[in-house]
Formats: sequence, structure tokens, C-alpha cells
Amino acid sequence: MNARDAGDAPDAGNRRGPAPAPPSFHEMWRELAPIGRHDAGGGYRRYAWTGADADCRAWFRAEAESRGLAYESDRNGNQWAWHGVTSAQDIAPGSAVVTGSHLDSVPDGGAFDGPLGVVSAFAALDELRAKGVHFRVPLGIVNFTDEEGARFGLACVGSRLSSGGLTRAQARELRDAEGVSLPQAMERAGHDPDGIGPDPDRLSRIGAFVELHIEQGRALADPGILAASGARGRAGVADRTARHAVGVASAIWPHGRWRFDFLGEANHAGTTRFEDRRDPMLTYALTVLAAREEAERAGALATFGKVAVEPNGVNAIPSVVRGWLDSRAADEETLAAVVAGIEDRATLRGRADGVQVSVTRESRTRTVEFAHDLRDRIARMLGGAPLLPTGAGHDAGILSASVPTAMLYVRNPTGVSHSPAESADEDDCVAGVRALADVLEGLAC
Amino acid sequence: MNARDAGDAPDAGNRRGPAPAPPSFHEMWRELAPIGRHDAGGGYRRYAWTGADADCRAWFRAEAESRGLAYESDRNGNQWAWHGVTSAQDIAPGSAVVTGSHLDSVPDGGAFDGPLGVVSAFAALDELRAKGVHFRVPLGIVNFTDEEGARFGLACVGSRLSSGGLTRAQARELRDAEGVSLPQAMERAGHDPDGIGPDPDRLSRIGAFVELHIEQGRALADPGILAASGARGRAGVADRTARHAVGVASAIWPHGRWRFDFLGEANHAGTTRFEDRRDPMLTYALTVLAAREEAERAGALATFGKVAVEPNGVNAIPSVVRGWLDSRAADEETLAAVVAGIEDRATLRGRADGVQVSVTRESRTRTVEFAHDLRDRIARMLGGAPLLPTGAGHDAGILSASVPTAMLYVRNPTGVSHSPAESADEDDCVAGVRALADVLEGLAC
Repeated sequence: MNARDAGDAPDAGNRRGPAPAPPSFHEMWRELAPIGRHDAGGGYRRYAWTGADADCRAWFRAEAESRGLAYESDRNGNQWAWHGVTSAQDIAPGSAVVTGSHLDSVPDGGAFDGPLGVVSAFAALDELRAKGVHFRVPLGIVNFTDEEGARFGLACVGSRLSSGGLTRAQARELRDAEGVSLPQAMERAGHDPDGIGPDPDRLSRIGAFVELHIEQGRALADPGILAASGARGRAGVADRTARHAVGVASAIWPHGRWRFDFLGEANHAGTTRFEDRRDPMLTYALTVLAAREEAERAGALATFGKVAVEPNGVNAIPSVVRGWLDSRAADEETLAAVVAGIEDRATLRGRADGVQVSVTRESRTRTVEFAHDLRDRIARMLGGAPLLPTGAGHDAGILSASVPTAMLYVRNPTGVSHSPAESADEDDCVAGVRALADVLEGLAC
Repeated sequence: MNARDAGDAPDAGNRRGPAPAPPSFHEMWRELAPIGRHDAGGGYRRYAWTGADADCRAWFRAEAESRGLAYESDRNGNQWAWHGVTSAQDIAPGSAVVTGSHLDSVPDGGAFDGPLGVVSAFAALDELRAKGVHFRVPLGIVNFTDEEGARFGLACVGSRLSSGGLTRAQARELRDAEGVSLPQAMERAGHDPDGIGPDPDRLSRIGAFVELHIEQGRALADPGILAASGARGRAGVADRTARHAVGVASAIWPHGRWRFDFLGEANHAGTTRFEDRRDPMLTYALTVLAAREEAERAGALATFGKVAVEPNGVNAIPSVVRGWLDSRAADEETLAAVVAGIEDRATLRGRADGVQVSVTRESRTRTVEFAHDLRDRIARMLGGAPLLPTGAGHDAGILSASVPTAMLYVRNPTGVSHSPAESADEDDCVAGVRALADVLEGLAC
């Protein structure tokens, strides 16, 4: 509860005036800003079911309740705010229009990835209400839990559970770096984990889900990149010279995570002759460079962003180096070929280094083509907004298997995301809210 | 205190029989074995001023007191046990013969590096006492604190402080990974940190320090390597075909630690085009491979065994990768040239990657030539034991600037050290104790 609740509002009591205006986009943004911020330069650490996450969830609930929306937290911990009904139970199948995104972050992430979609959702609803439009169908705002997977290593846990892409049994095995299981973490945060699992009834009531998100790339900022993206046949760009603050998602590249285990032998760095070594750091290093080369050749992406070394001592040759490969490509064949090429080169170098290489696929997401009729209709509503593919996974991608989904991207001048430097211009955020309001009006009114 | 103290001994009290025999080498080894062992396969984690270290220190004190030796912990936390005097204060300048080593370990280290020298010291004294030899001068056994530097990042803290190579002010700035300072850690372990600093009075009383250590290499195990080592002019090997369980140190290679900071830009691994990236993992990887090449060309050693990545997320291009280089060479010019060559190649690749590279020397130890008269005398006492150089730093190397020092190496069949697989044959350990006893008898009796 916060000071905006009716009972605490300054004009509550005997004198009854007009309802206070809901907090503006800027006010919401300011309230979210300090939650889970690690330090001035270090970005956000809003990991699922932590204290920072609880603060984000309390903020969402307060925003819902201060607007008189019906608030629900579902079996998997996703939060919903409904306009037009008092519960999801009252929604006719396939009728509701839902928007929203997530509030959690990657380690040292930025302020926009996730929150921009949630804040814009409340702001767009406020615009439509202020305009006095009539809603034909219920409108929902959602905060999906644990989208980034920063704590338990798997992205989109909330939407995967609800849509059945992650089973209850698999979810119960997820553990964080300290060994805390997902059910334990949920329980400690006050959410009953016994009910987690698929939620087809809830999803069946949704007719369309639209997620607004900051662009994670520079296609909207750079017409040349936009044209190149369209030229590769993944975007049907109407006007290749115009500049756009908002774009519409066409597809999500298939992507996955692979753990490479390099097993060598610990030894003294100051006394062991090179010919007696089995140093896995060398094999890892070659693999990092090979990943870039293989992906570059295929027009794909490959990144080693996470590494763990044992024993990780300055004067110790490592016994084990583990590196995590993130790779994405325009199609599944290319992705498989890139990863196989990297594995081959790692294995070959491992043989020379006396290092055993094993590769485990930790996750894979197939190509997502967003519903063509919905995305094209939305692009038309926005006066011919460009269609863009992306390499990033989203809850909208997960839900697309069960529900017609679409995404709006807001221009990102530097393209930087998953970093404290992630940003969008104020004018573009305003344009994003307006575009989302137009889309919701077109779909729900 | 333990069950071997006089008051608790089974034969104490009215019936006074002969003094119980002190614990044998094997009994001491068995008692130390469980202390700080991480798990069955994971090796030891005996870091300075932790609980495991306190257990090691209690063991040392009990061994000293059960033998009726005068026990002292000096201002820097080094532990001493004296035979022939009740305090170091009573020792005439330059007269005492001291042996010993250290009990702390690297992360996941082996059982022998350090403890073999301390346990052998007690066992050698027991042999000499059982033989009834007369000691002309006091004999000391020492456990130097924090030799490995696993916790605070600097090796040989105890001997460096006592000999003045590390100043009191520098030591007060040392911090562990959790931000705990060395003085705080000492205080929490019950040692007053106010007195840390040089201890010239104590060192001036020592006439010779002999450290026994497991060999960290295979020169004693492989006559071919031994001959090659001698052929490079750093060992005066008497007999190039004989096999030796024990060798004598000739010199310690100059060595150092350099921190390489690779500063790039965090970004989303799934959406950022290669041409928009500043990925420091690539620059790090090239540098790891370059270090091996540069060192190999110069007949030196170079290792990256420790790395830290921010934010270290699977789908995040890192903002920062830090890698620690350990490098050693036969002479200081070669070492400087190797490190400069690695830095040049890192900087060049960094330019291509958009990554800023900066290099900080965290420590450097100059060449140590052990006192020639003492080492040659010891080699003769042992019937022509081979003289070996090493790349590993030791407290004996630090003390060599203040005190005549020598080292004995015990054969290591695999050469593996700083690893749970580190080992020595039982017969060779026995030969090591006998050799140390012979040397102590020759120097002190």
C-alpha cells in the first residue's frame, strides 16, 4: 500500500472532489528508479523473488489498485491488473486484450528493459480513460515474473510455466547460485509454490497480447541498419528513408545457451613445464575466438559472456574452465551449424591441450514468427511502422505458441541494452505510450 | 591443547614412567589431514586467519608444547618452536638454526605444499633427540603465516612483513574478496594486528634457515629433465644418471603477477551486431593465447589462472574482464620482455575490439640465488644431492635477503602441485626427514 491509496489520499474524507489523476509516466518512472539499483553506475539487480523484486511487485500492485483495477497474482506469480472485470474468471474466452512486460533485470541491467513496457501500459490505459473511450472487451496489464532468468539461469520462467513450455517438475529443479530452489525462493517471498504449473484457462481468455519493449539494437536509430535488416528478407519495411520512434516485431531468431566444460588438470603455474600441462584456459580462449569467427561467417551471433574457473587462483593452472555460449541466428539450420562448428574447433584444440571438452545445451528457443495478421494490422494502425526481427527472447515469444502476440519496439539511440547505459529519449518514450494507446484502442475499443 | 599435553597423558600422575614418544611423522600427517579439506576430491582450503588456519595453528602449538619446546607467535603471526632456549630473546645473534615451512594452502591445494616441511621439521628434531645428539646452538621450527596469499592476493605475507619487504602500511591495505582487511582478519582470529611490521631483532638471531618442500616439478623424478635443467647452467648436477629422492635448491626464478583489465561495454548478447560491440572477452582470449606463445618462445612461463567477469551473465556481453597473469623466467630481462610482449599484443587486439587494456603489476620477486656456501655445504652433507632451480616463490626466498637460507626438495613423481593430486611417495618422505635431520645435525651439532 502507498500514499496513493484512497484512504490516504489528501482529498479523501468529507470533501469529495474529482478522483486524483493517476501518477504520470514520469512519476511512475521516478518511483521505480531506486528499486534494486546496485549503485550509481552499476545498474539494476532485480532478480526474481528477491527483496528488490518484492518492491517491484508491491509497486505494480499499488499502481493497479490506485487506478481501481482488479489485481491478481496467478499461480506462477505473474501479476495482472484488469480493467472492465473484477477477475480473470469473468472474461469471455479469447476476448481480453493484454499488454505489459516484466520488472526483473539481468545483473547490472538497465532501467528500460521490461519496466518501459509495464509503465507504458499503465500510462496508455490512463490516456484512453482520459479520452473517455469505450472498451468493448476487458483490458489487462501484466508483469511476468522472472523474465531475465538472472537468478535461476532460465529465462521467461513465468510465461513458460503458464504456457506449459516449462513443466512443474522442471521448474522445481531450478536452483540459484546459492542452491536455493525456485519453490524455496517463492515460499520465502510469500508465494505458495504448490500451485505452479500450466495455466491454460487464464491464457485462453486472452485474444491478443501486445508487449512494448525498448529496442535492443539500432535499427530504428539507423536507417541503414533498418534497410539492411529488411534487405535480408526478415522485415517488410515500407519506407527505407523515414525515421521511426516505434517499430513492430516481425520475428524472434532461434537461440539457445550451451555450457562448454573444459576439463584439464590443476597444477602450479610457476613450476609446471608447458609440456606437462593440461591447461583448460587455453582451450577456452581458442573457443571464444572461434565462436566469433564461426558466427561472423554465418551472419549469426555467438557470445561467451559468462565463465567460471576452478580453482581460480593466480598461481594455479585451472582444473576446470566452464564457459557459456549464447548463440542466435536467422534460422535453425544456421544456428545448429554455427554451434557445431564451434564445438568442433573446441574439441580439436582440446586434443592439443590435453583438455577434455564437453558441451551441454542448457536451453533452446525455436524461431518465433509473430502472428502475421495481428502484426500487420498493428503496423497499419501506426501508419506504416517498420517490421523488425530481433535476436532477443521475450515473454511475447513464449506466449505466441498459445495466444496471438505482437511487440512494439521503442527506439534506442545507442542500441545498448542489458547495461546501465541502456536508454531511450523522452520523446520516444512518449511516442511509445501514444502508439501503445492507439494499438489498444484499435484492438479493445 | 590436546590429549598429548602432560596433564592429560595416560601415564601422568603418581606413576612416572619414561616420557611418551612424540607423535610419529605418520601420526602428525594423519592429524593434519582433515583440517581445511574442502571435500574428498576438492583439496584443501586453508586460507590465512580463517577457521581452518586456526586449527592448523593450534596443531602446531600442540606439537611444540607436547615436545617441551618453547612456543612463540611473533608480531606478524608466524609461529616458532624453540629447542634449547625458552625464548628467542635468549638466542645469541646469528646462532640459531631454523627449519620449517607453512601450513596454509592455495584454493583446492594439495596436502604436501607447506605441511611436508613443518611435519618433517618436527620428525627430524625427534630423530636427532632419539639419537641423543648434542646441540651446540638453539634449533627453531617455524610456521610462516599466509605463504600462499590465497586470501589477500599477496604471497609470503608473514616472511615479507618480518624481513621488511612488505611494509606495515602496505599490509594494512590488503583486503580479501569480501573486503575484510588483513588487520581485521587478524583481529577476528585473536591476533593483535597493531604490532605487525619488520622484525629485524628476531631474524638477526638466525644463523641458517633450511626449508624442506615437496618438489614442484619432475626434475628429481626424471633424470632427463634434471640433466636439461643442469645443461641450462642453473644447476651443478654431480651425477646425471643417478636418481635422487632429495635435491637442494640453487635459485628461484624471478617472477610476478600482473592484472590485465579489459574494459569494453556491456550489451545484449542476442541483439548487438558484432560491428557495434566492444567485447572484452575477445581481447582477453587473444591475450591468453599470446601469453603462452610469448613465454614459449622465450623459454619462460606465463599463465592466466584467474579471471573475473562483469556482469558475468550468459546473455550479456561483458563490460569488464580482468585476467591475472603469472609469469616467471630464468632471468629478469627475459621476464620483462615476455610481459611486455604480451601487453603489446593485448593492446593491439584491444584496439581492434574497441577494448581498453591496462596492466598493473601486483607483485614482483627478483631472482633469488640461495647462499652458495650454505647450499654447497648441504649438498655435500647429502652425498652430492643435485642442485635445482625453481619457478616457485617460498618464504626461504624472501628470507634470503636477511638470513643465509637453503631449501631441500623431496621428489614428486608427477610434478603436480597446487592441486589435490599433489603427492610424494612414503619412502621419499622418509628420505626427506632423514636428509633434513642430517643437515640440521651438520649445522647445529
